[in-house]
Amino acid sequence: MKKIKIKNLTKQEFAPYGDVIEADEKTDYMLINNGKTKRFHDLARVSALGTNARIAISIFRSKPFSLPYRLDFMERHPYGSQAFMPMSLARFLVIVADDENGKAGEPKAFLAKEGQGVNYYPNIWHGALVALDKETDFLVVDREGVEKNLELYDFEDAYWIEE
Amino acid sequence: MKKIKIKNLTKQEFAPYGDVIEADEKTDYMLINNGKTKRFHDLARVSALGTNARIAISIFRSKPFSLPYRLDFMERHPYGSQAFMPMSLARFLVIVADDENGKAGEPKAFLAKEGQGVNYYPNIWHGALVALDKETDFLVVDREGVEKNLELYDFEDAYWIEE
Repeated sequence: MKKIKIKNLTKQEFAPYGDVIEADEKTDYMLINNGKTKRFHDLARVSALGTNARIAISIFRSKPFSLPYRLDFMERHPYGSQAFMPMSLARFLVIVADDENGKAGEPKAFLAKEGQGVNYYPNIWHGALVALDKETDFLVVDREGVEKNLELYDFEDAYWIEE
Repeated sequence: MKKIKIKNLTKQEFAPYGDVIEADEKTDYMLINNGKTKRFHDLARVSALGTNARIAISIFRSKPFSLPYRLDFMERHPYGSQAFMPMSLARFLVIVADDENGKAGEPKAFLAKEGQGVNYYPNIWHGALVALDKETDFLVVDREGVEKNLELYDFEDAYWIEE
């Protein structure tokens, strides 16, 4: 099986696939609430496409995985973005791939550090949710609507995602 | 000044004002990702009204307050819901009020425990963000659009919010 090395998650490398959601003190923010709160504004491109489409907020409670992680399949959501943010300080694994004629290409693996979340753009191949350190609750912002919004692709040969 | 006692946040009491966002194992969930993830689905009524309205994801980094908390004003957002979920295990204060002829009525104060978030419905009077234990980052899901989406109401006499 092919091995894929995990890299740190950065906005630059993740940009083709989605948004890294994080509060970066070096970027602009607004001071609100009499200076008690910093607003890091509008960090993700959220979208809900199709019939009766709307944005929903859910919680995913994910059991942890250990590394190396065996990646057998990827998924994508043609009708909407999907954002994940841990509800506690926790790392998680972010796996994406370019599309190659309707199939997921070679995966890229990123480690989201504490305080980072991601927003996958519509139709971007990504791995299922992979908590690492502990059972982790994630706030999820994604799309509800009429059309089926899940495609799966099974790799012929699985990948090992490793540090 | 009038004193308001803080109560525990429950879905039942908060229902007229918005959603309590929490993973309640007693409620229905779907098992996804080969049984590794529980999906607590569609926990909040998200809305974005007005011209070119859309849902945005932001982070609010809030300095902590101590109790009793002095409540001088409330705010509301006529054109959209606004959801708050801590990105670490932290409690925060949730203050709402009924509308009385365009003014905020007597406030109600709730303590959101670790793992709980809230979604305020459009046009619901609520207090500014009040972190309690530590500087806390919140994931915020609210509305972007053309129309001004903030109304403030200053109380003639402030309230003390206390345990």
